[in-house]
Amino acid sequence: MQLTLGMVLFDGFELLDAFGPLEMFGLLKDKVRIVIIGEKPGLVKSSAGPSILIESVFTENPMIDILMVPGGRGTGLQVANELLLEEFSKLDATSSHVASICTGAAVLARAGLLDKRKATTNKKSFEWVSTQRPEVNWVKHARWVEDGKFFTSSGVSAGTDMALALIAKIFGKETALQTATLAEYEWNSDPDHDPFAV
Amino acid sequence: MQLTLGMVLFDGFELLDAFGPLEMFGLLKDKVRIVIIGEKPGLVKSSAGPSILIESVFTENPMIDILMVPGGRGTGLQVANELLLEEFSKLDATSSHVASICTGAAVLARAGLLDKRKATTNKKSFEWVSTQRPEVNWVKHARWVEDGKFFTSSGVSAGTDMALALIAKIFGKETALQTATLAEYEWNSDPDHDPFAV
Repeated sequence: MQLTLGMVLFDGFELLDAFGPLEMFGLLKDKVRIVIIGEKPGLVKSSAGPSILIESVFTENPMIDILMVPGGRGTGLQVANELLLEEFSKLDATSSHVASICTGAAVLARAGLLDKRKATTNKKSFEWVSTQRPEVNWVKHARWVEDGKFFTSSGVSAGTDMALALIAKIFGKETALQTATLAEYEWNSDPDHDPFAV
Repeated sequence: MQLTLGMVLFDGFELLDAFGPLEMFGLLKDKVRIVIIGEKPGLVKSSAGPSILIESVFTENPMIDILMVPGGRGTGLQVANELLLEEFSKLDATSSHVASICTGAAVLARAGLLDKRKATTNKKSFEWVSTQRPEVNWVKHARWVEDGKFFTSSGVSAGTDMALALIAKIFGKETALQTATLAEYEWNSDPDHDPFAV
């Protein structure tokens, strides 16, 4: 059975937050189908410039197994976007795994999904993200944090390491290692190895 | 003065080949403008699924300082696409730097741009790429290879390490290190460190 990975994008998302994890899951084509989800049909523009096609909108009620959200400057607006936060609550209810990269954790937190859970985020934006929702147990030193079905990663590149950990959890460590090798990626597979925490 | 980075995309390009380097250059907004170039207006579909907007087509004669091409399954068709190869020759003539990621080296090679130069490519596709153009001095053990204005990287993730080396060359090593830290990326800054060569 193929799982569906839904990556929710919005204007001002950070390129590698989204496409690092999607590269790794994209190498597992027989196991995972990727769908780009957004609020409206059309294009979303990354903070770096390139624009991406939205393939499914919230009103279509996409069925998602693995729900993901990147960070980026755009999260500043999205944490106050009540419609988006409600949609995250809905999608969370039917997803077996939920993950954020970088400041994407602020969106999950404001949707109330991380209350009483451990989570992490970008180190440069730690203050801003953690004050969005004090009910979360924010972890300052971590490449990524796993708590139940929730995976939250540190900044940008940390999302790729977390994605491989999620692949290991779902499909086994051997599959994660093969995927990393295929992408010639030196996987930091230790969630506690975080050279950017200081 | 802002430099223009032109990333040439086509159907079947590998996501991280393009968006690893674009993440790093995208963090230098005041220094670099990114434009996605293609053969036709509209969208190109990555091998993983997501579709990207073409912002400029060859017939518009975009002025490019840094020319880049990713690899991916799509290169199989592109190495025989005479129109595309001609456009690479034209763009090369006015670019101060030219770079390929993964099997993107096959495109530069078939366009004749790498003749008598050292270059590398994806390790899993090394045989296929190197036989595309025997006039190139193909290097088997390298994370990336620099030869004059040409930078060629190994598979997928190696492109990000190469992009930071290119940033170091153009803007200085301090800027490259700051960019890597901003993206919480552990930069492999040694072009000879290639754990995937064996």
